[in-house]
Amino acid sequence: MTRRLLLVSNSTLHGGGGYLGHCQQQIQDFFGEQVKRILFVPYALHDRDGYAKTARDKLQSLGYEVDSIHEASDPVEAVRMAQGIFIGGGNTFRLLKALYDNKVVSEIQKRVLKDGIPFMGSSAGTNVATVSINTTNDMPIVYPPTFAALGLVPFNINPHYLDADPNSTHMGETREQRIKQFHEESDTPSVLGLREGCMLLVEGDKATLLGSTKARLFTRGKPAAEYEPGSDMSFLLTEGE
Amino acid sequence: MTRRLLLVSNSTLHGGGGYLGHCQQQIQDFFGEQVKRILFVPYALHDRDGYAKTARDKLQSLGYEVDSIHEASDPVEAVRMAQGIFIGGGNTFRLLKALYDNKVVSEIQKRVLKDGIPFMGSSAGTNVATVSINTTNDMPIVYPPTFAALGLVPFNINPHYLDADPNSTHMGETREQRIKQFHEESDTPSVLGLREGCMLLVEGDKATLLGSTKARLFTRGKPAAEYEPGSDMSFLLTEGE
Ligand SMILES: [Ca+2]
Ligand SMILES: [Ca+2]
Repeated sequence: MTRRLLLVSNSTLHGGGGYLGHCQQQIQDFFGEQVKRILFVPYALHDRDGYAKTARDKLQSLGYEVDSIHEASDPVEAVRMAQGIFIGGGNTFRLLKALYDNKVVSEIQKRVLKDGIPFMGSSAGTNVATVSINTTNDMPIVYPPTFAALGLVPFNINPHYLDADPNSTHMGETREQRIKQFHEESDTPSVLGLREGCMLLVEGDKATLLGSTKARLFTRGKPAAEYEPGSDMSFLLTEGE
Repeated sequence: MTRRLLLVSNSTLHGGGGYLGHCQQQIQDFFGEQVKRILFVPYALHDRDGYAKTARDKLQSLGYEVDSIHEASDPVEAVRMAQGIFIGGGNTFRLLKALYDNKVVSEIQKRVLKDGIPFMGSSAGTNVATVSINTTNDMPIVYPPTFAALGLVPFNINPHYLDADPNSTHMGETREQRIKQFHEESDTPSVLGLREGCMLLVEGDKATLLGSTKARLFTRGKPAAEYEPGSDMSFLLTEGE
């Protein structure tokens, strides 16, 4: 499989140099010099024009021209012509619904999994790259036609993964409790918790953790496990086979 | 309208005397001495037997016998015969899906809105009492047939409402940002953020805040507003008329 993915936990890192600042080196390594134009998907935020400007300003500074899919007269055609795709963060429910409303799900799958164009996701954009949005942190502000997502990898991700605060008096579920509730349901895939600052690079059948923070892997019926930056996570790509 | 509702933010309050400890006086005032048996709905947690035992132990100590709907051979008939209903917290998506799967949604609506039996909800149980689960904090671990809920009140609630932590370095959306994203969508109802320790009592067309903490009200196109315990919130009951 020729798939190439860069799945980032968070667009902005505290003290990380602003929007996409903490991962700009990885972005340049990932898209390289071959890709000249990146198709940006701003569907996760309400203000698509503003969001496209933010993404365009940053990616232009890294040497890439940006087309925003919301400016295209035919979104499917825009995906068909793309050299690379970046889906930004925001609200995952809104994002997934817009991907279906604009009928671009199968075309993105084809371009990434068959044609091998590079795909980057951040936060909600990372959620929709996986099996489903069942492990998003976002509020369900709109109702998508399904929680099934792009399925570019055979597992789920929890972006912005957060350790429980031992000093908290708040009684809402911790992140780990929420993911364990997901695994109480049958036939649920593994969930890779990417802490802020962490990202996953997938090249074909090889997956590697990048960034400055660790990831926590939750697998149904097994204890959770920690993985350092640099870890080989390729075993996750054979899940469900 | 004869409706009587006690909508609680959280089942357990830090330092509040264990499960339902912080609201036990309000529970006794609400169900009173007329009600002898309460129908408990444990659908929000995976371990329904264990959950029913927890609820039964607590409510028995307050003078009420408890039937758990999951022990009934016919859940709809159990609702039809109930003197009062209590829906407990857990995962809101799992809860709403189970309410639809067990076909009890319209019977609960009828018993509460037409027959006037008292209805108590806590956390996820409060979410499903409102217009929709669009403002739950929970992870979408299962896919319900709709986000539309019981609609016992014409607005939404955000239980476990949480103020932003000014010292946090985490970049995920604050609760207020999440609710504002909901209001970016058109035709969205008001959202009453009930902090832990707070609850809403509805008797017919009168609504009153109870408990020890304030609530924060979010209305589309207006600034957010704070309400003290004891505040008359009846104006929310005419929303959408
Ligand atoms: Ca988000
Ligand atoms: Ca919950």
